Amino acid sequence: MTSAIVLGGSRGMGKAISESLRSINIDVFSASKEDIDTSNLESVKNFAEIHKQVDVLVLNTGGPPAKEFSNVTEEDWNKYHNQLFLGFCILLQTIKINEGGYIFLISSSVIKEPNPKLIISSAYRAAFSEVFKILSKNYAQKNISCINIAPGPINTARTKELIDNIDEYKKTLPMGRLGEPEEIGNFVKSIVQNNIKYLSGVVINFDGANSSFIF
Amino acid sequence: MTSAIVLGGSRGMGKAISESLRSINIDVFSASKEDIDTSNLESVKNFAEIHKQVDVLVLNTGGPPAKEFSNVTEEDWNKYHNQLFLGFCILLQTIKINEGGYIFLISSSVIKEPNPKLIISSAYRAAFSEVFKILSKNYAQKNISCINIAPGPINTARTKELIDNIDEYKKTLPMGRLGEPEEIGNFVKSIVQNNIKYLSGVVINFDGANSSFIF
Amino acid sequence: MTSAIVLGGSRGMGKAISESLRSINIDVFSASKEDIDTSNLESVKNFAEIHKQVDVLVLNTGGPPAKEFSNVTEEDWNKYHNQLFLGFCILLQTIKINEGGYIFLISSSVIKEPNPKLIISSAYRAAFSEVFKILSKNYAQKNISCINIAPGPINTARTKELIDNIDEYKKTLPMGRLGEPEEIGNFVKSIVQNNIKYLSGVVINFDGANSSFIF
Amino acid sequence: MTSAIVLGGSRGMGKAISESLRSINIDVFSASKEDIDTSNLESVKNFAEIHKQVDVLVLNTGGPPAKEFSNVTEEDWNKYHNQLFLGFCILLQTIKINEGGYIFLISSSVIKEPNPKLIISSAYRAAFSEVFKILSKNYAQKNISCINIAPGPINTARTKELIDNIDEYKKTLPMGRLGEPEEIGNFVKSIVQNNIKYLSGVVINFDGANSSFIF
Repeated sequence: MTSAIVLGGSRGMGKAISESLRSINIDVFSASKEDIDTSNLESVKNFAEIHKQVDVLVLNTGGPPAKEFSNVTEEDWNKYHNQLFLGFCILLQTIKINEGGYIFLISSSVIKEPNPKLIISSAYRAAFSEVFKILSKNYAQKNISCINIAPGPINTARTKELIDNIDEYKKTLPMGRLGEPEEIGNFVKSIVQNNIKYLSGVVINFDGANSSFIF
Repeated sequence: MTSAIVLGGSRGMGKAISESLRSINIDVFSASKEDIDTSNLESVKNFAEIHKQVDVLVLNTGGPPAKEFSNVTEEDWNKYHNQLFLGFCILLQTIKINEGGYIFLISSSVIKEPNPKLIISSAYRAAFSEVFKILSKNYAQKNISCINIAPGPINTARTKELIDNIDEYKKTLPMGRLGEPEEIGNFVKSIVQNNIKYLSGVVINFDGANSSFIF
Repeated sequence: MTSAIVLGGSRGMGKAISESLRSINIDVFSASKEDIDTSNLESVKNFAEIHKQVDVLVLNTGGPPAKEFSNVTEEDWNKYHNQLFLGFCILLQTIKINEGGYIFLISSSVIKEPNPKLIISSAYRAAFSEVFKILSKNYAQKNISCINIAPGPINTARTKELIDNIDEYKKTLPMGRLGEPEEIGNFVKSIVQNNIKYLSGVVINFDGANSSFIF
Repeated sequence: MTSAIVLGGSRGMGKAISESLRSINIDVFSASKEDIDTSNLESVKNFAEIHKQVDVLVLNTGGPPAKEFSNVTEEDWNKYHNQLFLGFCILLQTIKINEGGYIFLISSSVIKEPNPKLIISSAYRAAFSEVFKILSKNYAQKNISCINIAPGPINTARTKELIDNIDEYKKTLPMGRLGEPEEIGNFVKSIVQNNIKYLSGVVINFDGANSSFIF
């Protein structure tokens, strides 16, 4: 592996993944919102014109503001349909992943346990997870692994926005703490570094034993 | 229950559900494509203006043509985003379901086992299933049950379009046959007729023991 | 359908299912603990000697007392291994289900959301659900449907034993109430009465929208 | 981390995990069948008497011979109930995992996609996965991570026993090959080495994009 693109790479989990991959001497392009706005399909296409191929692609993007179903507007649905779904589809239709490479999707634990306040995110991240699962079988033929990481509560600015009293919230979690972005970063790094390829087509909950469903 | 609306009610499963509900003296409006085109949001809004409330709503719509990922255009995504997802969201934001009523979603077994040829359908039907799950908890407060039926191979015109050699295909199925639309129709009828309310927030695979996953 | 055997048929859900099937003129044998003790394999074998074949078999049995993992003894494990798993296996290895028949398994919502207090039940009911899933494909060849109903909180003596303050508990449920055994009974009846066969190999959560996982 | 116990450590995946952990200077006890026979509860208890505590515990054991349901005897069920379920329960009731440690369960992809030939394995490995899930929440309080790895087809002696024509079989797999035990070994090592703790309570399919279900 020599090159990587990390979307949403300027902060939170994207930043931690970027740094982790750099630590093993991968040439990482950490895309910020200036480089690509995944809610804007023109911006997505322009990005894909410039970044035509890569070894490791990390699909990662912020989620929409918390909003109950009754308040979600047609404009909201369409915006986040682009941001969380369609932009990623266009990227995968356009950017070439080099043989033996990796695609990581940073989705969310809401895909398996949908959340009323994050209904937009639950819907479109699940939709893209379906696409990603299907594509994992095609990519497998080129020895490219597709790994969907579904983080639970991680210590990011976004989590702090979404949750009122973080300290109280932490006490409700099995580990008594949020996950650290570096744990996600190190996880991604480890897989690439050790050339673990057979881990593919899988959704990996990363939530500190917080979920209650068995599979 | 006295009134029902069945979308896609002029053929296939929608028709069978309509007839089944009529057999227990429910006043059923079987909406055809002339009444509502779920891919056209104006049409959806017009429909919801006329049909302001109902006891039983059956969300059912045809799927897109088979298409592999690389061939799906932006126009395709957007069209079926409307048809399989956004149109249904608008209906649920607008139409009032009467207390003690039912909402049935006729989705597809591809939501749990996504299919490369039906990638659009896999994605958006899964997305709407997430929304439907979330809403089931709100509707429960008004004693309204939300039941997601995920049919496998059913004996409809659509299945015949999608599968080349139906007779060969049948031999691969555990029951040696396709499901009949009437089985879905009778299932829906039974639940309504017997006032079974506690079955809610659930995805029910209806596939003749064809799937292989445990849950 | 002319004959049915309902295990655990003297109370709770088993009783309700028995009554429901009787109401459509099925000759139901409601087995009580005197007829068969599923924790005792000799009793199970004796039962299967007498009841050699049937149209509808309902596998239903009470669960173990609430016990945390650290307190479960080897004796407990072995007893409930018999009661919740091995007894049912022996029955399915021995009793002939007539062509076109049904097997209903009344499991529990803990198979998908395992519960620390019901760890024994979570484990062995899940184990048998795996067996049941596998067998559904064999039974399908004889047009026998296998339906796994996984009830959430139902208004039975057992639920009252397990939960301290039922009234407080009800308020936490989406529907504000427990499910009624009759709803399960009617559901089973409806499927048999309407000869719905294509519903097979499926786990049906029956929990009043209480669970939070999507599938 | 300084100490590890790897059950089934003399061959296949257990051996690869042992070697991987040794490469990062962990003192690994690779238990062979002479050290502990998990189908024999006395042997299990003796083992736990000697090995009272550890940092990293890897629960790993061979599966039963392929056998269809109708041929499984009571003796078979009981033997593998011990080997795949009860022995592990006793170990977790007895051995102390040190704070900040890890427990890895090497289960199998059959827990999510039960296999008719591996019906015993499907049942009891699923049962133990339920127990493991429940315990992950308790262990989380001591900062111990519980990770259930569910391998698909891995290049081991066992896989060669189970599958007639390996070369033909490989062609049916998305990656055109079996997974290598070293990939599992490296995966386990990476998590420990990088002190990734928030990955817990999760089942990780490790099957080279072979499964078809979404979650």
